[in-house]
Amino acid sequence: MPASPADSAIYRDLFSDQDTARLFTDSAQIRAMLLVEGALARVQGRLGLIPETAAAYIERAAREIQIDPAELAAETARNGVPVPGLIAAFRKAMQAPEHAQYLHWGATSQDIMDSALALRLRRVTEIWNARLTELARALAGLARDHADLPMAARTYGQLATPTSFGAVVAGWGHPVLRHRTRLAALAPELATLSLGGAAGTLSAMGAEGPAIRAALARELGLADPGHSWHAERDHIGGFAAWMAGLCASLGKMGEDLILMTQSGIDEIRIDGAGGSSTMPQKQNPVAPSVLVALARQTAALSAAIQGAGLHRQQRDGAAWFVEWLTLPQLCISTGRALELALNLAGRITPNAAAMARNLDDGHGLIYAESYSFALARHMPRPEAQTRIKALCAEAQSSGQTLPDLIARDFPALDLSAAGRLGTAPVDARNFANEVFAGG
Amino acid sequence: MPASPADSAIYRDLFSDQDTARLFTDSAQIRAMLLVEGALARVQGRLGLIPETAAAYIERAAREIQIDPAELAAETARNGVPVPGLIAAFRKAMQAPEHAQYLHWGATSQDIMDSALALRLRRVTEIWNARLTELARALAGLARDHADLPMAARTYGQLATPTSFGAVVAGWGHPVLRHRTRLAALAPELATLSLGGAAGTLSAMGAEGPAIRAALARELGLADPGHSWHAERDHIGGFAAWMAGLCASLGKMGEDLILMTQSGIDEIRIDGAGGSSTMPQKQNPVAPSVLVALARQTAALSAAIQGAGLHRQQRDGAAWFVEWLTLPQLCISTGRALELALNLAGRITPNAAAMARNLDDGHGLIYAESYSFALARHMPRPEAQTRIKALCAEAQSSGQTLPDLIARDFPALDLSAAGRLGTAPVDARNFANEVFAGG
Amino acid sequence: MPASPADSAIYRDLFSDQDTARLFTDSAQIRAMLLVEGALARVQGRLGLIPETAAAYIERAAREIQIDPAELAAETARNGVPVPGLIAAFRKAMQAPEHAQYLHWGATSQDIMDSALALRLRRVTEIWNARLTELARALAGLARDHADLPMAARTYGQLATPTSFGAVVAGWGHPVLRHRTRLAALAPELATLSLGGAAGTLSAMGAEGPAIRAALARELGLADPGHSWHAERDHIGGFAAWMAGLCASLGKMGEDLILMTQSGIDEIRIDGAGGSSTMPQKQNPVAPSVLVALARQTAALSAAIQGAGLHRQQRDGAAWFVEWLTLPQLCISTGRALELALNLAGRITPNAAAMARNLDDGHGLIYAESYSFALARHMPRPEAQTRIKALCAEAQSSGQTLPDLIARDFPALDLSAAGRLGTAPVDARNFANEVFAGG
Amino acid sequence: MPASPADSAIYRDLFSDQDTARLFTDSAQIRAMLLVEGALARVQGRLGLIPETAAAYIERAAREIQIDPAELAAETARNGVPVPGLIAAFRKAMQAPEHAQYLHWGATSQDIMDSALALRLRRVTEIWNARLTELARALAGLARDHADLPMAARTYGQLATPTSFGAVVAGWGHPVLRHRTRLAALAPELATLSLGGAAGTLSAMGAEGPAIRAALARELGLADPGHSWHAERDHIGGFAAWMAGLCASLGKMGEDLILMTQSGIDEIRIDGAGGSSTMPQKQNPVAPSVLVALARQTAALSAAIQGAGLHRQQRDGAAWFVEWLTLPQLCISTGRALELALNLAGRITPNAAAMARNLDDGHGLIYAESYSFALARHMPRPEAQTRIKALCAEAQSSGQTLPDLIARDFPALDLSAAGRLGTAPVDARNFANEVFAGG
Repeated sequence: MPASPADSAIYRDLFSDQDTARLFTDSAQIRAMLLVEGALARVQGRLGLIPETAAAYIERAAREIQIDPAELAAETARNGVPVPGLIAAFRKAMQAPEHAQYLHWGATSQDIMDSALALRLRRVTEIWNARLTELARALAGLARDHADLPMAARTYGQLATPTSFGAVVAGWGHPVLRHRTRLAALAPELATLSLGGAAGTLSAMGAEGPAIRAALARELGLADPGHSWHAERDHIGGFAAWMAGLCASLGKMGEDLILMTQSGIDEIRIDGAGGSSTMPQKQNPVAPSVLVALARQTAALSAAIQGAGLHRQQRDGAAWFVEWLTLPQLCISTGRALELALNLAGRITPNAAAMARNLDDGHGLIYAESYSFALARHMPRPEAQTRIKALCAEAQSSGQTLPDLIARDFPALDLSAAGRLGTAPVDARNFANEVFAGG
Repeated sequence: MPASPADSAIYRDLFSDQDTARLFTDSAQIRAMLLVEGALARVQGRLGLIPETAAAYIERAAREIQIDPAELAAETARNGVPVPGLIAAFRKAMQAPEHAQYLHWGATSQDIMDSALALRLRRVTEIWNARLTELARALAGLARDHADLPMAARTYGQLATPTSFGAVVAGWGHPVLRHRTRLAALAPELATLSLGGAAGTLSAMGAEGPAIRAALARELGLADPGHSWHAERDHIGGFAAWMAGLCASLGKMGEDLILMTQSGIDEIRIDGAGGSSTMPQKQNPVAPSVLVALARQTAALSAAIQGAGLHRQQRDGAAWFVEWLTLPQLCISTGRALELALNLAGRITPNAAAMARNLDDGHGLIYAESYSFALARHMPRPEAQTRIKALCAEAQSSGQTLPDLIARDFPALDLSAAGRLGTAPVDARNFANEVFAGG
Repeated sequence: MPASPADSAIYRDLFSDQDTARLFTDSAQIRAMLLVEGALARVQGRLGLIPETAAAYIERAAREIQIDPAELAAETARNGVPVPGLIAAFRKAMQAPEHAQYLHWGATSQDIMDSALALRLRRVTEIWNARLTELARALAGLARDHADLPMAARTYGQLATPTSFGAVVAGWGHPVLRHRTRLAALAPELATLSLGGAAGTLSAMGAEGPAIRAALARELGLADPGHSWHAERDHIGGFAAWMAGLCASLGKMGEDLILMTQSGIDEIRIDGAGGSSTMPQKQNPVAPSVLVALARQTAALSAAIQGAGLHRQQRDGAAWFVEWLTLPQLCISTGRALELALNLAGRITPNAAAMARNLDDGHGLIYAESYSFALARHMPRPEAQTRIKALCAEAQSSGQTLPDLIARDFPALDLSAAGRLGTAPVDARNFANEVFAGG
Repeated sequence: MPASPADSAIYRDLFSDQDTARLFTDSAQIRAMLLVEGALARVQGRLGLIPETAAAYIERAAREIQIDPAELAAETARNGVPVPGLIAAFRKAMQAPEHAQYLHWGATSQDIMDSALALRLRRVTEIWNARLTELARALAGLARDHADLPMAARTYGQLATPTSFGAVVAGWGHPVLRHRTRLAALAPELATLSLGGAAGTLSAMGAEGPAIRAALARELGLADPGHSWHAERDHIGGFAAWMAGLCASLGKMGEDLILMTQSGIDEIRIDGAGGSSTMPQKQNPVAPSVLVALARQTAALSAAIQGAGLHRQQRDGAAWFVEWLTLPQLCISTGRALELALNLAGRITPNAAAMARNLDDGHGLIYAESYSFALARHMPRPEAQTRIKALCAEAQSSGQTLPDLIARDFPALDLSAAGRLGTAPVDARNFANEVFAGG
């Protein structure tokens, strides 16, 4: 019963990302929680907190037992967490109460759930890191191939000056590199064990508490936080913001593509664009629109997570629930945005003829700044600018072109600099080189 | 693969509301879309736009045909909307191309989807309206039963003056009545047909367009908007805000209950409170915490919908997608909040002894305002306030009570007004009467 | 020291609305609070709660006394509310302690501040209601004047089918009418007195409390709520959402104008468009961009207010502060959006030639749906659609026009319906008539 | 006319932070913009792009000229940016048109404004870095001093197990250290020059463009980005999220303090707490409430900035305006939250007696987990937990204490581990050591 289109059979291929979604299924969560419980028992057995035989039984059972998610529903609704129900189901399934009693020794629900999340977020960040690299390469290829392809830069939708398509693509790519760098700083924070016991003091583990925490961290390949962090959610907030930030950067690429594919602009062709139920001619920029939508969605979801940073006291059900209600969707949407941007990077082709046509617009206004600097060699710049501005207005009202009007009024003026792309080609190539060199 | 816990077998009973969720399943959406297509054909057959026989075939098929949601996934991913795929699947399933060709005549995807949504939102608002009434009654019962039960009012968490539990409950209930009134204004806006054709001009239906729109509205029991509204989403925004507003009011009830159930305050007992995986004594206020979490979640989701009101041109994929990504979750969370508040209203019992104990706090400070007014009969009020303020400080530092100190310094003062509940009892009863009268 | 550009001497004319901002100045707040205190005294004097002479002194002083806002800063920082400081300053300024002691009798800070806000929001809604009417009229004039002016409707930025500029304007105007209707429902909720005393029970006013509340409401021209509502903020939430909703609708107008003024599209000219510091040709759509920005800002601010609906217990400093931090900005931005939309409605001129040019795009693809229906009279519609789709592709790749290709393949086909505007002209006129009739 | 209480004479001391606000005044912005223009001229003179004499004149004038902010209002409203007006005012004030014409040579408004912002954000991050260090030290002092002071840990507001006040303070402090580390990564991104010219290609500076950019960066002490970043706003988004994240962590401290100061809990005393206009006894936790409010506000504002990352094309007025409307307020609120948290850290005193009293609650339930582990040495843990759970219920219903009931049923049980603080004291000391060692 899909509250989220990502969970819908109809919309899944539009809005979900299977690689990421797989980590948030019920069974993936149960598996991860059992893995934590099993490793905890192993470590506690090794350090003598629980009998080694019981530890061995528990650990093996944690790998083998199948627990039906639906079986946990009633207890989860009652307790607000699935762990008490999971432990009961696990103990029942083990059929060895003498060993099963040592399960979850001195831990609390949040230890298990946060550590199980850490295990899965570690995998999420690995998948995304690879995609960011792939996306940077795809964009670098486009930037390099079209470094010199002239097109109109626009500000406020208006022709500004010439740039190159490669430089535009580099503008999509630079943030991707920075987001990848930021993810590298975030990933270890996310891959951190939680083990604090009932209220963060590990009191039920006696003097061994910190040693067990350290050993369990090693066992699971997670970082040892050195203390409990049940109510310190700043890295979750940082991760949510990173996702919203990445999606915003990809959404900017989406916005640009929507504008470039507009009828009458036609600067980009997207292979496999979407059809309409009634208009035979339509080639809708569906994927760019999805990128924009995911950016808007993740910005809103990230705000919810930021608010959930106000975790009261040692543990706060309300704040924590907000994370549960939000984080999986945020991750799946982010994964989808990355996947879609990568897919889109391979499906877009610039239309050089349309770009050339749009550069001009019939009046040559895009060269106005350039002409004003040329003219400023012969008169003060403010005066040059005023003169060119007047000619721009005349060009638009009379239907003439700005170069013609300049030739009329300033026949000797050297206009050869107009149309130069400035740093655009080198910017595009620098970006490509950075990516291809940097790996 | 749950992006949303409402779609999870583990968390469903905690976060989903089956009655509301049922209206957002894939099959419910498909059924609603087919219902619109069938009714459109019937109306177009009747008004002569398509052959009557074809119309009859289509309408019957729309009731009978089963379409597998997964079958629509690929085309939905390509086109960004499920309607082209749905039409293809429908036509194929009809096995009568001579009739099937008249399906979806002159309509556009958004007509079908928005109208199918309207049909389901109409049902959603009916369900919720009944729940709001039930909730108001449950709160009215509590307010009436405990109209005179004294408890401490608190501002900033500090004892303020006495109030009654019934008045506190009335404070939860008043907004419920107002939200119900507002829903009554919103519901007809939501239950409005969309029929605009490709770009809102109904051009493919010729002169009959408006007549078909009116007849289809009657057929489906929806309002005729009188024009196309593909890009006018203000009522969707208003509905989202209404949901966030309702959830905020219910979340306030949740916050109060969390504070009232605190250990050491103990003013409320919740039957069936939640247990911990490690602490035997815990009786966690799970349901109130879920109410708070849903309020935070819906506020964030509502912001996403508000932003999606900036729908560009005649139709805007990006803005519309944001609605799809958000509205079902928003509705299911709101339904859940309502269901949970109602359930909670039947599970809470005030603890009169604890309320009496907390009223006092050992120093009698809660009567300070009352004493200051009593004293102000004998000296200027600012002076009375300053004197009482000094005695408050003395009471706290010396461990004595404020009444004792007042008796020491102002032995003749009549303190009988202290502890009066003011309008609290009558406020509680007025609320109950309003509900039971207005019902 | 402007935290907000609306408070900046540089940006004021870009982002502030003087009529609305005037109601949120420090002195306007002080005046409104004094007005409430004065009226409270008058009513309490009349009903015998305080001496009539004192009441008369207080009321006169409330009209005459000047209080310097800066004088309240220190006490406001300490107490979190300006009222204790205001009362102290007022008492001092009155120089009549025997009367001054009866000031603020039995009221609490929040009574004074919320009632003072109600007085100002009443005025805000009056100003905006008039602007909404003016804006509807301005748009109605445009819709009527250009009801038959053909232009391309676009979905996803792609040519869809023809519409008229008047219909586009009507699409901006319909939500304005609905927002005005909604404001009419909201305004009385906003113009509601608050009088609850320390914790909502009016305990310090004895049996007279409700009578004083009713009389004070009449005195101030506000509604009597019938109970205290310190912690019931749903109408503030509803107002915030209304503002965000209105700004979203105006932002949609802004988005459309940005797209219509794009170089190469040129369908709209805005008188007095913005210049660049370096590009002489620029005519930036500054005002439409501000509308979009205000829509984004108000959506975010509205989310903050929605969250502040979770007001804990009888009064909650944190939640209430969020309102203070947000509501004035939200109102000023909304006022500005309305003012700017109205101003813009008088500065835009459609460019019929550019609209005609864009309708075509060289290939005639915009008529594809129409042709497919024409062809569907001679073959099944799915086949007709497939044939036209193939011709659309051929037209784009070969550079020919769709009508030419249709004439080649289906020489007998009657294409005269193509280009019809459908209901667009009548939709535009209906909107205009509704406005001019409804007034 | 304050849209923001931070700009209000009444509320300034409650909500503004003068050190931060000073950097966002109109005059600070003008000064920073002039500084950039002056340095640009100097560099361009040195590299031969403009005459050295003109450069010297411009640079000196940039330091000396006074520009009245109000003088820029009209042109700012027209152009959407203050730079054209600033240049005109500057040229006029220079009274040397032959030199003034070389001002702003080849730059665009956004270069000047973004670079002027970078200069001020560099200073903001320096101020805040120092405050973060001070705050960490203040918390470290508290954590160390109260490392062994027992108090009840609470989850869901319910007694959980004992912890120490020092550990609670360490829980406030850990995120402060991490936010400081994150700020160190962000600060250089923020202190980055913008110089791209009209549309990011530096075309008007010819081949010298990159050299001028590099030299200007050195001149201003900013980083050279190596390319234009007008439309790449990810670091602004990251900064906004960092602010919201920090404020959430400080808001968590606020929430805890509000709960600890509750009447009946009384675990913390705040010196200089706030008074009421009517209740003499009130000692409101105003500062903690402000921390919570600022956290909610900044989360909402941060969402606005995240959305503004969808910057269209080479420059996007709407997205950029959203930054202007939001960033100063966000910075000032964040500065205020930091200042207030620091101030608060020096004003709180734990109440050991109240903490001891609350640990117990009359039933000894807080030791339940500990007893269950003691009992689990004599029977399987699930059975032990069930037995203790039953005794907890009996204790609550009968009014007896849990230890008494355990002594009754299990007279031989060794309960000496109960009440142990686990890792709490060492966690508190470790935090203090980390801060005092790390500096």
